[in-house]
Amino acid sequence: MSEHATLMLVRHGQSTWNALVRFGGWVDVPLTERGRDEARRCGELLSKARLLPDVVHTSLLRRAISTADLALDAADRTWIDVRRSWRLNERHYGSLQGKSKEQIRAEFGEDQYMRWRRSYHAAPPPIDLDSEHHQSTDPRYAELRDGVPRTESLEDVVARLVPYWESAIVPDLRAGRTVLVVAHGNSLRALVKHLENLSDSAISGVNIPTGVPMRYDLTEELEPVTRGGIYLDPEAAEQGAAAVAAEGRTPTPVPADKRGVTGGTSMNEMI
Amino acid sequence: MSEHATLMLVRHGQSTWNALVRFGGWVDVPLTERGRDEARRCGELLSKARLLPDVVHTSLLRRAISTADLALDAADRTWIDVRRSWRLNERHYGSLQGKSKEQIRAEFGEDQYMRWRRSYHAAPPPIDLDSEHHQSTDPRYAELRDGVPRTESLEDVVARLVPYWESAIVPDLRAGRTVLVVAHGNSLRALVKHLENLSDSAISGVNIPTGVPMRYDLTEELEPVTRGGIYLDPEAAEQGAAAVAAEGRTPTPVPADKRGVTGGTSMNEMI
Repeated sequence: MSEHATLMLVRHGQSTWNALVRFGGWVDVPLTERGRDEARRCGELLSKARLLPDVVHTSLLRRAISTADLALDAADRTWIDVRRSWRLNERHYGSLQGKSKEQIRAEFGEDQYMRWRRSYHAAPPPIDLDSEHHQSTDPRYAELRDGVPRTESLEDVVARLVPYWESAIVPDLRAGRTVLVVAHGNSLRALVKHLENLSDSAISGVNIPTGVPMRYDLTEELEPVTRGGIYLDPEAAEQGAAAVAAEGRTPTPVPADKRGVTGGTSMNEMI
Repeated sequence: MSEHATLMLVRHGQSTWNALVRFGGWVDVPLTERGRDEARRCGELLSKARLLPDVVHTSLLRRAISTADLALDAADRTWIDVRRSWRLNERHYGSLQGKSKEQIRAEFGEDQYMRWRRSYHAAPPPIDLDSEHHQSTDPRYAELRDGVPRTESLEDVVARLVPYWESAIVPDLRAGRTVLVVAHGNSLRALVKHLENLSDSAISGVNIPTGVPMRYDLTEELEPVTRGGIYLDPEAAEQGAAAVAAEGRTPTPVPADKRGVTGGTSMNEMI
């Protein structure tokens, strides 16, 4: 065991709906070939840095699971312990799931669109129970029974994620294990908010690019040694943010003191 | 829960050393493209038969892990619980690991060659501690410390597998879960010997083809309802056996009452 507990966060590689700029949420879309390449590259970065996880935690969505599988294969760590939970799932995007972002912005206007994407408290309208993009009968959520979300704010994500952090991830960290969490733009933002004790407004400036491992060394009290974490490939993290910003969507300012190397914007971070 | 507990056994798809007809054992060789296709086909068979696992158990070897990942992806069950153990690993082939079967047969003669492959009690000579094919410093076996095997008989495999069966697989079955075990020719033969209470000599006639799911319905006492299990694709199981037999190696007779549809021989079953 190193002197600090080590936590690695990875956001899944590009999904088919990232590529189409549609709201994904709990819809189980696969990675694109680019996303698969990002995942392998992530594994190579872990391997090169000798940051070899002892255990991996993923959501129940295949874009995170495939990212973990491909990254661990590239790092020769396919054999480590695996834990999964719906509590690491992406934020549920309600009735926006499956819709194009362009369409939603055109239909509801820039202000409403940004509120749904950026406010800590706002949740989109709940998804119709009979929508093809609702998950009420998906067997992976059987334990939730009638409690499968129909929409979520980021605040809701924090509320359902923190119990998993406390009960499943913290014990692994306390056991001295290097922990890899492969999840989603918003479930990772929720985790970072909790971990760094960020304010409701500060979290809106936090961007997490796809497929670049972010390292947190944690004190004995499981507080970050370096705020904002450390990207294993800062250049890729910046380029990732710049590339999505260049797709022509409204950039969102990021407080310079908040993210270090992650500064810039991530167009698709809320997908 | 169905009226019987359901256990699905799958032997990993073709590995690079299956293709080269080399002894694999604990050496961590990957699947070939054919092996990856077998794994996907396995998932399609599970899906078509609506035999959807709730939990998967694998060895720590990537040919089993990749087979499980690809099969579960094809069956849309990537999200199920995952458990892994070295106790499901292939038999350790001692100093034969990495050697071509043809070479070993030529060097030691047919009788010795078959004794190492077929006897329940015989183990090959232990592997050299400094062999590139020994695993004493492999981090995945850290918990074994100096106890990483240097060779194993099938009897040794039964001895290290049964504790895992009792402590990890049986509880899942008793909880009413459909359990998928993805492992190896010999660890699965060890499991079948235990499950069916086969004699030391009867087990030598048991062949398990690659990538074809075998289903066991179990009674409340976890005894097989149908001895020999049921292959989801009996034709593929037979063809798999016939194809390897046609590679020109000495066929081994299989007692007709022992295996049902699996009759025939599997050249590479001991790899």
